[in-house]
Amino acid sequence: MARMKETLADRYRRVRARTEALAAPLCVEDQIIQSMPDASPVRWHRAHTTWFFETFVLGPHAPSHRSPHPAYRHLFNSYYNGVCEQWARARRGILSRPTVAEVGAWRAEVDAATLGLIERADPALLATIEPLVTLGLNHEQQHQELIVTDIKHGLLQNPLVPVYREDAAASPKRAARDDGPAEVGFDGGLVEIGFDGEGFHFDNERPVHRAYLRPYRLARDLVTCGEYRAFIDAGGYRDASLWLSDGWDVVQREGWQAPLYWHQSGEGSSEGSVEGTGDWHQLTLGGRRPLDDGAPVTHVSFFEADAFARWAGKRLPTEHEWEHAARLAKPEADGTFLDDEAFHPVGRDAPLHGGLRHLLGEGWEWTQSSYLPYPGYEAPRDALGEYNGKFMNAQRVLRGGSCATPREHIRASYRNFFQPDKRWQFTAIRLADDV
Amino acid sequence: MARMKETLADRYRRVRARTEALAAPLCVEDQIIQSMPDASPVRWHRAHTTWFFETFVLGPHAPSHRSPHPAYRHLFNSYYNGVCEQWARARRGILSRPTVAEVGAWRAEVDAATLGLIERADPALLATIEPLVTLGLNHEQQHQELIVTDIKHGLLQNPLVPVYREDAAASPKRAARDDGPAEVGFDGGLVEIGFDGEGFHFDNERPVHRAYLRPYRLARDLVTCGEYRAFIDAGGYRDASLWLSDGWDVVQREGWQAPLYWHQSGEGSSEGSVEGTGDWHQLTLGGRRPLDDGAPVTHVSFFEADAFARWAGKRLPTEHEWEHAARLAKPEADGTFLDDEAFHPVGRDAPLHGGLRHLLGEGWEWTQSSYLPYPGYEAPRDALGEYNGKFMNAQRVLRGGSCATPREHIRASYRNFFQPDKRWQFTAIRLADDV
Amino acid sequence: MARMKETLADRYRRVRARTEALAAPLCVEDQIIQSMPDASPVRWHRAHTTWFFETFVLGPHAPSHRSPHPAYRHLFNSYYNGVCEQWARARRGILSRPTVAEVGAWRAEVDAATLGLIERADPALLATIEPLVTLGLNHEQQHQELIVTDIKHGLLQNPLVPVYREDAAASPKRAARDDGPAEVGFDGGLVEIGFDGEGFHFDNERPVHRAYLRPYRLARDLVTCGEYRAFIDAGGYRDASLWLSDGWDVVQREGWQAPLYWHQSGEGSSEGSVEGTGDWHQLTLGGRRPLDDGAPVTHVSFFEADAFARWAGKRLPTEHEWEHAARLAKPEADGTFLDDEAFHPVGRDAPLHGGLRHLLGEGWEWTQSSYLPYPGYEAPRDALGEYNGKFMNAQRVLRGGSCATPREHIRASYRNFFQPDKRWQFTAIRLADDV
Amino acid sequence: MARMKETLADRYRRVRARTEALAAPLCVEDQIIQSMPDASPVRWHRAHTTWFFETFVLGPHAPSHRSPHPAYRHLFNSYYNGVCEQWARARRGILSRPTVAEVGAWRAEVDAATLGLIERADPALLATIEPLVTLGLNHEQQHQELIVTDIKHGLLQNPLVPVYREDAAASPKRAARDDGPAEVGFDGGLVEIGFDGEGFHFDNERPVHRAYLRPYRLARDLVTCGEYRAFIDAGGYRDASLWLSDGWDVVQREGWQAPLYWHQSGEGSSEGSVEGTGDWHQLTLGGRRPLDDGAPVTHVSFFEADAFARWAGKRLPTEHEWEHAARLAKPEADGTFLDDEAFHPVGRDAPLHGGLRHLLGEGWEWTQSSYLPYPGYEAPRDALGEYNGKFMNAQRVLRGGSCATPREHIRASYRNFFQPDKRWQFTAIRLADDV
Repeated sequence: MARMKETLADRYRRVRARTEALAAPLCVEDQIIQSMPDASPVRWHRAHTTWFFETFVLGPHAPSHRSPHPAYRHLFNSYYNGVCEQWARARRGILSRPTVAEVGAWRAEVDAATLGLIERADPALLATIEPLVTLGLNHEQQHQELIVTDIKHGLLQNPLVPVYREDAAASPKRAARDDGPAEVGFDGGLVEIGFDGEGFHFDNERPVHRAYLRPYRLARDLVTCGEYRAFIDAGGYRDASLWLSDGWDVVQREGWQAPLYWHQSGEGSSEGSVEGTGDWHQLTLGGRRPLDDGAPVTHVSFFEADAFARWAGKRLPTEHEWEHAARLAKPEADGTFLDDEAFHPVGRDAPLHGGLRHLLGEGWEWTQSSYLPYPGYEAPRDALGEYNGKFMNAQRVLRGGSCATPREHIRASYRNFFQPDKRWQFTAIRLADDV
Repeated sequence: MARMKETLADRYRRVRARTEALAAPLCVEDQIIQSMPDASPVRWHRAHTTWFFETFVLGPHAPSHRSPHPAYRHLFNSYYNGVCEQWARARRGILSRPTVAEVGAWRAEVDAATLGLIERADPALLATIEPLVTLGLNHEQQHQELIVTDIKHGLLQNPLVPVYREDAAASPKRAARDDGPAEVGFDGGLVEIGFDGEGFHFDNERPVHRAYLRPYRLARDLVTCGEYRAFIDAGGYRDASLWLSDGWDVVQREGWQAPLYWHQSGEGSSEGSVEGTGDWHQLTLGGRRPLDDGAPVTHVSFFEADAFARWAGKRLPTEHEWEHAARLAKPEADGTFLDDEAFHPVGRDAPLHGGLRHLLGEGWEWTQSSYLPYPGYEAPRDALGEYNGKFMNAQRVLRGGSCATPREHIRASYRNFFQPDKRWQFTAIRLADDV
Repeated sequence: MARMKETLADRYRRVRARTEALAAPLCVEDQIIQSMPDASPVRWHRAHTTWFFETFVLGPHAPSHRSPHPAYRHLFNSYYNGVCEQWARARRGILSRPTVAEVGAWRAEVDAATLGLIERADPALLATIEPLVTLGLNHEQQHQELIVTDIKHGLLQNPLVPVYREDAAASPKRAARDDGPAEVGFDGGLVEIGFDGEGFHFDNERPVHRAYLRPYRLARDLVTCGEYRAFIDAGGYRDASLWLSDGWDVVQREGWQAPLYWHQSGEGSSEGSVEGTGDWHQLTLGGRRPLDDGAPVTHVSFFEADAFARWAGKRLPTEHEWEHAARLAKPEADGTFLDDEAFHPVGRDAPLHGGLRHLLGEGWEWTQSSYLPYPGYEAPRDALGEYNGKFMNAQRVLRGGSCATPREHIRASYRNFFQPDKRWQFTAIRLADDV
Repeated sequence: MARMKETLADRYRRVRARTEALAAPLCVEDQIIQSMPDASPVRWHRAHTTWFFETFVLGPHAPSHRSPHPAYRHLFNSYYNGVCEQWARARRGILSRPTVAEVGAWRAEVDAATLGLIERADPALLATIEPLVTLGLNHEQQHQELIVTDIKHGLLQNPLVPVYREDAAASPKRAARDDGPAEVGFDGGLVEIGFDGEGFHFDNERPVHRAYLRPYRLARDLVTCGEYRAFIDAGGYRDASLWLSDGWDVVQREGWQAPLYWHQSGEGSSEGSVEGTGDWHQLTLGGRRPLDDGAPVTHVSFFEADAFARWAGKRLPTEHEWEHAARLAKPEADGTFLDDEAFHPVGRDAPLHGGLRHLLGEGWEWTQSSYLPYPGYEAPRDALGEYNGKFMNAQRVLRGGSCATPREHIRASYRNFFQPDKRWQFTAIRLADDV
């Protein structure tokens, strides 16, 4: 049991410390702003993840713990109706207090209390809190990814183009692309889907169930910026026939002409991507960078990924196809992850696994599948049951993790999801095809 | 070939005449209004269905035909980007011209031209236009359903509660419900999905493909108004834990407390359903009617259907489950259809088929499935390719047709779809369960 | 008394008949649509003016009168909170019932009852109802103007550009402009403002009060289309320094480049005025007409009138200046009025009065004054007190009547008012200057 | 000239230092948030006032000055179209950079450069820059007031109710109110209006001109919280007949039931004022305080002031009446001002002047007058001409300064203006009446 305590406490310290490390390059001001309703202030992420431990671990299981800040219960609740009313999401950026320092102090207090609770726990209590702490740490890792994408959005709205880290998005050693066929075929048939291992997983990865797949092919590599530029040059953003109807509406309404953060020289504004005539560059967490044609394209919406695939005569994979391929390929997490501190899908040199590269890492791969419960899924009955189930409203599923995902957080069965018009996440494209 | 011409011409006359018959009880004013962006004026439906024949049949295949009204091409195009720019959907109700009479005359002109074309067609031409005319007639039947639901919404927004037909929504002879088990079990396994017959079907019903189903159960009957009232009385609209997150937002924002068109005595307003203390009634195309506890509940959104199912300890079926059951049950279309002129899911006396009642007719049954292309689906390459494919954006699928669907229009493989918050269609609930 | 009854009844018949005459060229469809929230359906105007007589004359003073349609009380109340709740203004166009014919019949019923009441009235009752009927008739004349401007907006939104009357907006015999100095000077000083005559006037024209004016000049003529075109050609719509800040925001947001209903050849759309390169025309109630450079410009907002004046090195007059000039000039109502059935400010041949032309008629002249109560103003205490007082919220005042105003309705002291961004009324510009 | 330099430099140092002093109690986070589009971040105010000196003083007159931050020119321009494009007002709160410290450093740089310029100026240059510097300092004083009201709004949106200064809004020694008649009469007649003195004034206070006033009365005192509470208790917020039509719309839409920042015990939320049943308190910059019945009511909109006056059987004064009374009363600035650091209209003990109390200070007094140019007004022709003229769009004029106005900033002729629904400024009510 001492070993289990040690492991849990270690993991707790490590995950919590990485959140702080991500915030470290930011000034106080950076941690306060909310650049759009989809994004949250970094200070809020630091507080909300702390709220999770106080609410679900300390509250019920550390009777001697008195929250130093009862009002935070309301302020930093994101969506648990079972806990209490929430502060409106779109208004997270108008709260100046608690200050960044106060949130830092609160984090330390909760960390001490949680680590103390682990330390003192008898076997029964440890068995009870271990899954809660583990869930809290996985939850925090999800917010680590959001910290990266939200602060990226916040900084890059600013005409001053502040740099998060000078070394971010630097060009890496890139894998040669001549090491195998451009596509890999799969027979399909009746396959198994869902998490079937040991250890932590989210409820939405279960139950394991069978699905029938027709033969299909997956592209060896993610679509690159260069390939995507060809789509732009071919007028992809002006041809309605390539787009889903709802997607075309967004293109028109938002004036999309390129992925988010792409700009062409000659433009004045850092907002809105406008087709110019000069060289392309993109804004990254390392500042303005020339477009790297060989790197995976990112910051595309589902609508753009889908239109690109149609233009290319292909389609997006289903999540079942993706997971089945990943089960066979047994990929290592050797794409770019948060741990690499590139903060950009630079396209890390990586070998093929089952003929496929970068299944894990780099960018989240849009699938054509809707985010729905697996057959037989039942949400847990307690407040934590609000974690996943109630959000299963047919967003599009993404697979594989990104350069902002902690490496240990990803699994072949991991299901991420966003609405089809979102593009501030590190999203990417892998093409599929029927045989 | 004469026989085929005859059949086609007959069907053309019959379908076109029913559209006119549906409009007949309406005054000119009723045909002009647009009560919300989702709905269209009846005059518009009559014109748009005519536009279809002029654009896709006469335009390319009747060289001597000159459209008497070239401007209509723009005004009555609903969504074909390939044809020309469209008049904005939400602004269909601000056009007073062409008048109802002018649209009527245009319909007659196009009918004469189309019937003449059929009459004169040589075999090659007939083979070419037959599928186009058939598609146009199926398209028109879809708009017949919308005429009913749109004018229902238009009339019932009006505090005067105008009556469409006095005989509508009258209580029928109702089937006794003691004729079989309340649920029917299915083994599932690897099943076939999709239209595999002869004759007309939409592209979205294809290709036929296999899917794997776990064992499941379907309820014999649709959920009734009485059962739904129990959900209301139990506080279903006030319990966030029963709802998808997006659904709960709509409940809050719209103040939903009951299905659309339900009211409780003591209320003044005909808009908005407010929980009162008196007897329930509902507004129908036959006027105000006391709530019929034994009839199927209708005008519920997917969110309401889903919350009801959760409250009842069940779930909604997938579209695969529904279709598989229907393939086995071989149901007859003996529920209430448009042909019955009840204009309400009154719950027609009907025998069980495979232990299930009203699989076809009464109300469209919400499934939990997203509206996505079937594996291997490819949209046709011409302007008609815009018919279905570009709308496959993860709305929820509904199955089985309703009291506003022409009986001959429905099939077990037929896929309808709406966004999950829509409730002005005749939507209904059939519960499912895992074994 | 018989004479007074006769006169009142005659006037009642005449005014009510003109409303019907204005609606006569319209089909039922035209009378139902509401093309924007500012405008109301013609059917609504016909009903609301009738509601006025039933509510304020028959209701309290004809005890035997039973409203045949009690529900209309709510439907056709425009703003009298003292009477009952109102049907939302922006939703007037979604009511198909009562039908146009039913409203016509109701008008006839109320007319018969009102005329009968007048006929039977004893002296005391006559003294009571005469001012109410007179107010009702003046109210109806205001709605006659709105019928013209609202249906103009409704018809001209339609790409078919329906014609209200073929003879509308035909070019008239135009006054020569060489008959006097281009400007007339006034000494100002302490002057009297407000209605000081006998007979009907609105409460907002009172009390008579004194105001101090500095010496000023007024332009002899209204600004013409040709002069306004010079402003456009000089880049007036692109020069922020000419505009009030709020006005500039509207110019940007709405993309204004010319007055409402002006178009330049080469444009496809009938909405939105876009600067092209070809000849200018304008859409009128008589259809598309080449721009008549000598006619007064109309359909300009206050913001445009103000920017034009600044560009011209002048300013707009105050309402005090305008009224003082009109008191001295004693103008005849010899500009274009509704009675002329031109339905456009064609610039009728008219002599100068006090050196000024068209003080009355043609177009409402924007002043720089805010619509506020005169010193000492008190709103009447009954429901009719809601007529004017509660709307005095600093809109801009317009003076002099327009081509859509009944000739007998106008007075030098008459105060009209609209928000500064409105331009669907027949609004015009007369420049002023300091001496 | 040395004396003039000294005076100017002293004043510059003093005003600039007060801005910093106002920001001093705030943490970095407080200076970044923007709680609504009307308000701006404190950091922005500090930068924008600095931008003014760099743009209008250093830019043209200190050729050796190189802006250290050219990008700030765009970021901190508020409305000068003549200078360059602006960063959208509503998006001021999403900029994390420049940091608060960077803005502080920039302020110091610009201060050094400006003071150096003054120091080195020859007589001609001094004569040129003195009015620009003076304008810049008056401009900065206006922003000092906004700093107070904007941060008040920002802090009090927060459920934590952060305190700006513990000593703010403390109850003062209050003047007895039995020292003269409750109203003072004025004869009116032909009076002079406008700034006729020496020294600084804004262009909108000129030219001096004559106006004619009827006899009128002004209340000796501002309306108190206790008096306003009586209006609430009498149902003032529920009686449509007391309100302007546009005002009533706002009451309904926003759910107003009391002035901004008033709350009744029993309520949970710090947003929205809800009528409860317990004791009233108000949120102030000193925290939550019981309502002080004897202090002037503040944070009321024009609509509320106007409705209160109507309920009281009075009216609001015109700005002419107010200024005329102030010219006669020759008030001293002995109400509460920014210099008192009460940050609340506490109702300072002050003698009567001409029978009136608190004409200057405490709260801005709503008048019924529209903000329009005075007769003969002409905006300056340079970029500074955008200072006032282009905003004269009939907002309502307020007079007399408030507890957030620097004492030396106010004059009897000073014209402030806000839209009639705004209430986050320290606005107050003084009643008037006709004789």
